[in-house]
Amino acid sequence: MPDPGGGASVSRVLSALDSPIVLAPMAGGPTTPDLVVAVSEAGGFGFLAGGYLDGDALGAAVADVRARTDRPFGVNLFLPGERRDAGVAEYRERLVAAGLDPGEPRWDDGGCASELALLLADPVPVVSFTFGCPDPDAVSRLQAAGSEVLATVTSPAEARRAAAAGVDGLVVQGMEAGAHRGVLDDDPADPAGGELFGLLALVRLVAAAVDLPLVAAGGIVDGAGVAAVLAAGAVAAQLGTAFLACPEAGTKPVHRAALADPAGPSTAITRAFTGRPARGIRNAFLDAHSAAAPAAYPQVHHMTRPIRAHGDPATANLWAGQAYPLVRPLPAADLVETLLAEAQEAAAGAAQRLAGVAR
Amino acid sequence: MPDPGGGASVSRVLSALDSPIVLAPMAGGPTTPDLVVAVSEAGGFGFLAGGYLDGDALGAAVADVRARTDRPFGVNLFLPGERRDAGVAEYRERLVAAGLDPGEPRWDDGGCASELALLLADPVPVVSFTFGCPDPDAVSRLQAAGSEVLATVTSPAEARRAAAAGVDGLVVQGMEAGAHRGVLDDDPADPAGGELFGLLALVRLVAAAVDLPLVAAGGIVDGAGVAAVLAAGAVAAQLGTAFLACPEAGTKPVHRAALADPAGPSTAITRAFTGRPARGIRNAFLDAHSAAAPAAYPQVHHMTRPIRAHGDPATANLWAGQAYPLVRPLPAADLVETLLAEAQEAAAGAAQRLAGVAR
Repeated sequence: MPDPGGGASVSRVLSALDSPIVLAPMAGGPTTPDLVVAVSEAGGFGFLAGGYLDGDALGAAVADVRARTDRPFGVNLFLPGERRDAGVAEYRERLVAAGLDPGEPRWDDGGCASELALLLADPVPVVSFTFGCPDPDAVSRLQAAGSEVLATVTSPAEARRAAAAGVDGLVVQGMEAGAHRGVLDDDPADPAGGELFGLLALVRLVAAAVDLPLVAAGGIVDGAGVAAVLAAGAVAAQLGTAFLACPEAGTKPVHRAALADPAGPSTAITRAFTGRPARGIRNAFLDAHSAAAPAAYPQVHHMTRPIRAHGDPATANLWAGQAYPLVRPLPAADLVETLLAEAQEAAAGAAQRLAGVAR
Repeated sequence: MPDPGGGASVSRVLSALDSPIVLAPMAGGPTTPDLVVAVSEAGGFGFLAGGYLDGDALGAAVADVRARTDRPFGVNLFLPGERRDAGVAEYRERLVAAGLDPGEPRWDDGGCASELALLLADPVPVVSFTFGCPDPDAVSRLQAAGSEVLATVTSPAEARRAAAAGVDGLVVQGMEAGAHRGVLDDDPADPAGGELFGLLALVRLVAAAVDLPLVAAGGIVDGAGVAAVLAAGAVAAQLGTAFLACPEAGTKPVHRAALADPAGPSTAITRAFTGRPARGIRNAFLDAHSAAAPAAYPQVHHMTRPIRAHGDPATANLWAGQAYPLVRPLPAADLVETLLAEAQEAAAGAAQRLAGVAR
């Protein structure tokens, strides 16, 4: 929304938050209505994850959240990308040859069309998109229905493209981020799907490129990180990995166990689990198959589902951002409160140091 | 230095700066004594770059700085790494076949031994190391001579290793950084020489791993970036690319011209120019030869010197961090002043927002 007072636009919803802390929408189970309610009730901003759901399932989740909080929340949708089948059959053969039990690959739109219809009929305060640039018509229809619309971007060029589509703000995702990268067009020739920008440089570049409020995402797990991105010019910080260890999250036991090991392996970006670049904790499956995995989402996602379902740490998708060793298994409300207190201290300390108060 | 008051160690020199802004040591010409004097006189911290110099040349630069400022400054040294010759001859043949005029490859220690002897005999306030972990004996001798010693690291594991060598602080370099990556051991199997961490996540991970003051480097070009890394817990921000456009810098005209184009190409990490991973603005040489360049520093550096000397934008090494489109061609003192003012505003804004003052 344009700010009549001049200067950069300000999101109505995000600027009104008690805590400028946004729960990243984590599709596939981790983000539950419980988690969304807890974060929004604590003064942050909860985001339901529409990815892998259809309109009916999303509608049920929305109703569940609404029944338990009057605070604002959002819904994230995965936009379907270009269908690509190259390499899919060969990748399945590779997994079979490795003694694994892949399912059948199939392409679908991830339920996006039915979810969009639901959100137009029954609007929520904020709708964010990932995996593509929403078309201007969808953006304006959602806005007319009363929703703010955000797009997820990973580069200054993507930010300009999303701004041109008329969105109200951007989720700016650095290369540190866990799980799927939000590249608008997944470049199959690049293992990361597109250029990797560190979050801090990216926020500054995007702030110079577009006049929109920015939500910074990627590798933020504590209040110092929240304060840092606010100092860099973001209106809020979006955290995913930090909430994976909350009891309200639907995080699988194998995933929780991996996150709980601060001396665990580092993370890497891989297409091995879904066909789209995503960051997870390195394990045997990731290391063995990343180089061979095709750019074919969601076919690869459907193919690896039976393998991931075993809950084996060697073959599960252990999505995590680069700072995962610092996550804390707190209840979500306590985590929001802790993040805010830490962020207040960090920002005040930086302001004092810069004002000439020696540490 | 341990802080007798408890808590994290505090660097005497860096905590006493009027402006927590460190000029990155930029070897090969950009960092001049003029630039070091201007930054230190403005209340920041200038760093002479010992890379590619010997003890005599470094001694002359130190004397030049001392003659013109009483403010503290530092010297950075490149530590020689393991000698590797694999692929060097083939790479030279490739460059010849491309119609270029490479020089002869040779290995040397980069003058480090004679520079270290100079700094022990005639100490400066701070000595930082890049390209390797200083041995504990060198660290303690420099400390006994009165210098603080910093090591440059790019991962939490490297931070632990440098801390074990007894250094007084760390320069924490994110993947956004321009020019050479400071990986302690360049992994020849990895085009980036080692894992890529975004600066913000890296600062938090390193802060949790070691109890040392941290100087944050990588992609910081404005005061909002400075404020962000201070909020993240760094005692100072180190900026290189931001100072490349200053009139006091020895930046070559071809390099200045590339930096002055905010719509120029993006950056990439490459071994093509020196044999060590370094980030520069993409051009024809970088794109053509990155995939073939061997991990052989400084042999490749010596080999490409005649090619780079032509000053052709297609074949020059245009070192730059990811945020280079935002650099400003200000005199160094004005830049330090501007960075401080911007950082003060950014930190104060974040502190106010977090304290509940809506934007």
